[in-house]
Amino acid sequence: MDKIEHIGIAVKDLDVSNKIYEKLLGKSHYKIEEVLSEGVKTSFFEVGPNKIELLEATREDSPIAKFIEKKGEGIHHIAFAVKDIELEMARLKKEGFILLNEKPKQGADNKLVAFIHPKTAGGVLVELCQENNNKH
Amino acid sequence: MDKIEHIGIAVKDLDVSNKIYEKLLGKSHYKIEEVLSEGVKTSFFEVGPNKIELLEATREDSPIAKFIEKKGEGIHHIAFAVKDIELEMARLKKEGFILLNEKPKQGADNKLVAFIHPKTAGGVLVELCQENNNKH
Repeated sequence: MDKIEHIGIAVKDLDVSNKIYEKLLGKSHYKIEEVLSEGVKTSFFEVGPNKIELLEATREDSPIAKFIEKKGEGIHHIAFAVKDIELEMARLKKEGFILLNEKPKQGADNKLVAFIHPKTAGGVLVELCQENNNKH
Repeated sequence: MDKIEHIGIAVKDLDVSNKIYEKLLGKSHYKIEEVLSEGVKTSFFEVGPNKIELLEATREDSPIAKFIEKKGEGIHHIAFAVKDIELEMARLKKEGFILLNEKPKQGADNKLVAFIHPKTAGGVLVELCQENNNKH
Protein backbone atom coordinates (compact mmCIF):
# COMPACT_ATOMS: atom_id res chain seq x y z
CA MET A 1 0.00 0.00 0.00
CA ASP A 2 1.66 3.22 -1.20
CA LYS A 3 -0.67 5.88 0.21
CA ILE A 4 -4.32 6.74 0.79
CA GLU A 5 -5.41 7.29 -2.80
CA HIS A 6 -8.78 8.73 -1.83
CA ILE A 7 -11.58 8.77 0.72
CA GLY A 8 -15.02 8.04 -0.70
CA ILE A 9 -17.88 10.04 0.85
CA ALA A 10 -21.54 9.17 0.23
CA VAL A 11 -23.67 12.27 -0.42
CA LYS A 12 -27.34 12.81 -1.19
CA ASP A 13 -26.89 15.66 -3.66
CA LEU A 14 -23.62 16.11 -5.53
CA ASP A 15 -24.24 19.79 -6.35
CA VAL A 16 -24.94 20.68 -2.72
CA SER A 17 -21.95 18.69 -1.44
CA ASN A 18 -19.59 20.02 -4.10
CA LYS A 19 -20.26 23.49 -2.70
CA ILE A 20 -19.60 22.35 0.90
CA TYR A 21 -16.33 20.62 -0.01
CA GLU A 22 -15.25 23.52 -2.17
CA LYS A 23 -15.53 25.76 0.91
CA LEU A 24 -13.93 23.17 3.19
CA LEU A 25 -10.94 22.43 0.97
CA GLY A 26 -10.63 25.91 -0.49
CA LYS A 27 -10.68 24.66 -4.08
CA SER A 28 -13.05 23.25 -6.72
CA HIS A 29 -13.47 19.63 -7.78
CA TYR A 30 -11.37 18.80 -10.83
CA LYS A 31 -13.75 16.36 -12.44
CA ILE A 32 -17.21 14.82 -12.43
CA GLU A 33 -17.51 11.24 -13.61
CA GLU A 34 -20.38 8.78 -13.79
CA VAL A 35 -19.68 5.08 -13.23
CA LEU A 36 -22.69 3.36 -14.81
CA SER A 37 -21.84 -0.14 -13.53
CA GLU A 38 -21.83 1.12 -9.91
CA GLY A 39 -24.83 3.43 -10.22
CA VAL A 40 -22.88 6.47 -9.03
CA LYS A 41 -21.96 9.97 -10.10
CA THR A 42 -18.69 11.09 -8.54
CA SER A 43 -16.70 14.28 -8.14
CA PHE A 44 -13.02 14.47 -7.25
CA PHE A 45 -11.06 17.01 -5.23
CA GLU A 46 -7.28 17.03 -4.90
CA VAL A 47 -5.72 17.50 -1.45
CA GLY A 48 -1.96 17.30 -1.95
CA PRO A 49 -1.08 13.65 -2.73
CA ASN A 50 -4.63 12.50 -1.87
CA LYS A 51 -8.17 12.88 -3.18
CA ILE A 52 -11.68 13.19 -1.86
CA GLU A 53 -14.30 11.40 -3.96
CA LEU A 54 -17.92 12.42 -3.43
CA LEU A 55 -20.44 9.76 -4.47
CA GLU A 56 -24.08 10.33 -5.35
CA ALA A 57 -26.38 7.41 -6.21
CA THR A 58 -27.88 7.47 -9.71
CA ARG A 59 -30.17 4.48 -9.10
CA GLU A 60 -32.26 3.26 -6.18
CA ASP A 61 -30.33 -0.03 -6.08
CA SER A 62 -26.94 1.71 -6.05
CA PRO A 63 -24.71 0.69 -3.11
CA ILE A 64 -24.52 4.40 -2.25
CA ALA A 65 -28.32 4.72 -2.01
CA LYS A 66 -28.38 1.71 0.33
CA PHE A 67 -25.53 3.11 2.43
CA ILE A 68 -27.25 6.49 2.88
CA GLU A 69 -30.56 4.82 3.71
CA LYS A 70 -28.85 2.80 6.45
CA LYS A 71 -26.22 5.18 7.82
CA GLY A 72 -26.90 8.63 6.38
CA GLU A 73 -24.38 10.76 4.51
CA GLY A 74 -20.76 10.22 5.50
CA ILE A 75 -17.50 8.42 4.86
CA HIS A 76 -18.11 5.36 2.71
CA HIS A 77 -14.69 3.84 2.00
CA ILE A 78 -10.90 4.23 2.13
CA ALA A 79 -8.97 3.55 -1.06
CA PHE A 80 -5.29 2.67 -0.98
CA ALA A 81 -3.02 3.06 -3.99
CA VAL A 82 -1.19 -0.13 -4.92
CA LYS A 83 1.36 -0.79 -7.66
CA ASP A 84 0.21 -4.28 -8.63
CA ILE A 85 -3.42 -4.91 -7.73
CA GLU A 86 -3.45 -8.62 -8.57
CA LEU A 87 -0.39 -9.26 -6.40
CA GLU A 88 -1.95 -7.30 -3.52
CA MET A 89 -5.29 -9.13 -3.91
CA ALA A 90 -3.49 -12.48 -3.73
CA ARG A 91 -1.53 -11.39 -0.64
CA LEU A 92 -4.67 -10.19 1.17
CA LYS A 93 -6.63 -13.32 0.29
CA LYS A 94 -3.83 -15.41 1.77
CA GLU A 95 -4.01 -13.26 4.93
CA GLY A 96 -7.70 -14.18 5.31
CA PHE A 97 -9.41 -11.08 3.87
CA ILE A 98 -12.53 -11.65 1.76
CA LEU A 99 -12.51 -9.80 -1.56
CA LEU A 100 -15.80 -8.52 -2.99
CA ASN A 101 -14.54 -9.02 -6.55
CA GLU A 102 -12.28 -11.85 -7.63
CA LYS A 103 -10.75 -9.90 -10.53
CA PRO A 104 -9.85 -6.20 -10.66
CA LYS A 105 -12.62 -4.12 -12.24
CA GLN A 106 -12.76 -0.71 -13.91
CA GLY A 107 -13.37 2.07 -11.40
CA ALA A 108 -13.66 5.86 -11.63
CA ASP A 109 -10.66 8.09 -12.40
CA ASN A 110 -8.96 5.57 -14.72
CA LYS A 111 -8.29 2.99 -12.01
CA LEU A 112 -8.43 -0.76 -11.69
CA VAL A 113 -10.12 -1.46 -8.38
CA ALA A 114 -11.01 -4.22 -5.93
CA PHE A 115 -12.91 -4.09 -2.64
CA ILE A 116 -12.35 -5.95 0.62
CA HIS A 117 -15.39 -7.05 2.62
CA PRO A 118 -15.82 -4.74 5.68
CA LYS A 119 -16.60 -7.84 7.76
CA THR A 120 -12.97 -8.94 7.44
CA ALA A 121 -11.49 -5.43 7.76
CA GLY A 122 -12.89 -4.23 11.09
CA GLY A 123 -16.05 -2.65 9.70
CA VAL A 124 -14.23 -0.59 7.06
CA LEU A 125 -14.89 -0.88 3.33
CA VAL A 126 -11.38 -0.91 1.84
CA GLU A 127 -10.67 -0.33 -1.85
CA LEU A 128 -7.43 -1.11 -3.60
CA CYS A 129 -6.67 0.91 -6.71
CA GLN A 130 -4.05 0.84 -9.35
CA GLU A 131 -3.52 3.33 -12.18
CA ASN A 132 -4.85 1.64 -15.30
CA ASN A 133 -1.80 2.49 -17.39
CA ASN A 134 0.52 0.72 -14.93
CA LYS A 135 -1.12 -2.53 -15.96
CA HIS A 136 0.97 -4.86 -18.18
CA MET B 1 -5.32 21.82 3.48
CA ASP B 2 -2.03 20.13 2.54
CA LYS B 3 -2.97 16.44 2.54
CA ILE B 4 -4.98 13.82 4.39
CA GLU B 5 -2.90 13.58 7.57
CA HIS B 6 -4.74 10.51 8.84
CA ILE B 7 -8.00 8.58 8.89
CA GLY B 8 -9.33 7.80 12.36
CA ILE B 9 -10.99 4.41 12.76
CA ALA B 10 -13.04 3.49 15.84
CA VAL B 11 -12.29 -0.03 17.08
CA LYS B 12 -13.54 -2.12 19.97
CA ASP B 13 -10.26 -3.80 20.84
CA LEU B 14 -6.96 -2.18 19.85
CA ASP B 15 -4.96 -5.43 20.10
CA VAL B 16 -7.35 -7.30 17.81
CA SER B 17 -7.51 -4.42 15.30
CA ASN B 18 -3.75 -3.84 15.34
CA LYS B 19 -3.38 -7.42 14.06
CA ILE B 20 -5.99 -6.88 11.30
CA TYR B 21 -4.39 -3.62 10.11
CA GLU B 22 -0.92 -5.11 10.31
CA LYS B 23 -2.06 -7.79 7.85
CA LEU B 24 -3.95 -5.29 5.70
CA LEU B 25 -1.15 -2.75 5.43
CA GLY B 26 1.70 -5.25 5.51
CA LYS B 27 3.45 -3.44 8.38
CA SER B 28 3.23 -2.86 12.14
CA HIS B 29 1.94 0.23 13.92
CA TYR B 30 4.76 2.61 14.85
CA LYS B 31 3.33 3.86 18.10
CA ILE B 32 0.64 3.47 20.76
CA GLU B 33 -0.47 6.61 22.55
CA GLU B 34 -3.16 7.33 25.12
CA VAL B 35 -4.96 10.70 25.03
CA LEU B 36 -6.40 11.01 28.53
CA SER B 37 -8.48 14.12 27.79
CA GLU B 38 -10.31 12.32 24.94
CA GLY B 39 -10.65 8.96 26.68
CA VAL B 40 -8.88 7.07 23.88
CA LYS B 41 -5.95 4.77 23.30
CA THR B 42 -4.62 5.09 19.76
CA SER B 43 -2.24 3.27 17.47
CA PHE B 44 -0.69 4.72 14.33
CA PHE B 45 0.29 3.10 11.05
CA GLU B 46 2.19 4.85 8.26
CA VAL B 47 0.99 4.49 4.66
CA GLY B 48 3.33 6.59 2.55
CA PRO B 49 2.55 10.27 3.29
CA ASN B 50 -0.58 9.35 5.28
CA LYS B 51 -1.48 7.57 8.50
CA ILE B 52 -4.17 5.32 9.87
CA GLU B 53 -5.11 6.01 13.50
CA LEU B 54 -6.99 3.27 15.33
CA LEU B 55 -8.98 4.52 18.33
CA GLU B 56 -10.15 2.43 21.27
CA ALA B 57 -12.27 3.98 24.04
CA THR B 58 -10.74 3.93 27.52
CA ARG B 59 -13.88 5.23 29.26
CA GLU B 60 -17.60 4.63 28.84
CA ASP B 61 -18.19 8.34 28.16
CA SER B 62 -15.46 8.51 25.50
CA PRO B 63 -16.70 9.84 22.13
CA ILE B 64 -15.37 6.61 20.60
CA ALA B 65 -17.48 4.44 22.93
CA LYS B 66 -20.56 6.46 21.94
CA PHE B 67 -19.71 6.24 18.24
CA ILE B 68 -19.32 2.43 18.37
CA GLU B 69 -22.53 2.04 20.36
CA LYS B 70 -24.41 4.00 17.69
CA LYS B 71 -22.70 3.00 14.44
CA GLY B 72 -20.42 0.05 15.19
CA GLU B 73 -16.73 -0.14 14.37
CA GLY B 74 -15.62 1.87 11.36
CA ILE B 75 -14.26 5.12 9.99
CA HIS B 76 -14.66 7.87 12.58
CA HIS B 77 -13.01 10.98 11.09
CA ILE B 78 -10.78 12.46 8.38
CA ALA B 79 -7.89 14.65 9.50
CA PHE B 80 -6.33 17.18 7.16
CA ALA B 81 -2.84 18.58 7.70
CA VAL B 82 -2.73 22.37 7.80
CA LYS B 83 0.21 24.74 8.18
CA ASP B 84 -1.50 27.34 10.37
CA ILE B 85 -4.44 25.91 12.28
CA GLU B 86 -5.67 29.23 13.69
CA LEU B 87 -5.74 30.81 10.24
CA GLU B 88 -7.59 27.78 8.82
CA MET B 89 -10.09 27.79 11.71
CA ALA B 90 -10.83 31.47 11.09
CA ARG B 91 -11.27 30.85 7.34
CA LEU B 92 -13.67 27.92 7.92
CA LYS B 93 -15.69 29.79 10.52
CA LYS B 94 -16.13 32.62 8.02
CA GLU B 95 -17.31 30.06 5.44
CA GLY B 96 -20.08 28.94 7.85
CA PHE B 97 -18.56 25.80 9.37
CA ILE B 98 -19.17 25.21 13.09
CA LEU B 99 -16.02 24.35 15.04
CA LEU B 100 -16.27 21.94 17.98
CA ASN B 101 -13.45 23.74 19.77
CA GLU B 102 -12.83 27.48 19.62
CA LYS B 103 -9.09 27.16 20.25
CA PRO B 104 -6.68 24.49 18.94
CA LYS B 105 -6.16 21.72 21.49
CA GLN B 106 -3.46 19.12 22.06
CA GLY B 107 -4.14 15.91 20.12
CA ALA B 108 -2.28 12.62 19.68
CA ASP B 109 0.99 12.36 17.73
CA ASN B 110 2.27 15.81 18.77
CA LYS B 111 -0.44 17.74 16.95
CA LEU B 112 -2.56 20.79 17.59
CA VAL B 113 -6.07 19.87 16.53
CA ALA B 114 -9.55 21.26 15.96
CA PHE B 115 -12.75 19.54 14.87
CA ILE B 116 -15.54 20.70 12.56
CA HIS B 117 -19.12 19.73 13.42
CA PRO B 118 -20.28 16.93 11.06
CA LYS B 119 -23.62 18.72 10.73
CA THR B 120 -21.90 21.50 8.77
CA ALA B 121 -19.59 19.17 6.79
CA GLY B 122 -22.02 16.77 5.11
CA GLY B 123 -22.09 14.20 7.90
CA VAL B 124 -18.30 13.88 8.13
CA LEU B 125 -16.30 14.60 11.27
CA VAL B 126 -13.37 16.65 9.98
CA GLU B 127 -10.21 17.27 12.01
CA LEU B 128 -7.59 19.89 11.26
CA CYS B 129 -4.11 19.19 12.53
CA GLN B 130 -0.90 21.08 12.66
CA GLU B 131 2.51 19.82 13.80
CA ASN B 132 3.04 21.27 17.26
CA ASN B 133 6.56 22.46 16.48
CA ASN B 134 5.35 24.55 13.53
CA LYS B 135 3.60 26.75 16.05
CA HIS B 136 5.08 30.19 16.62
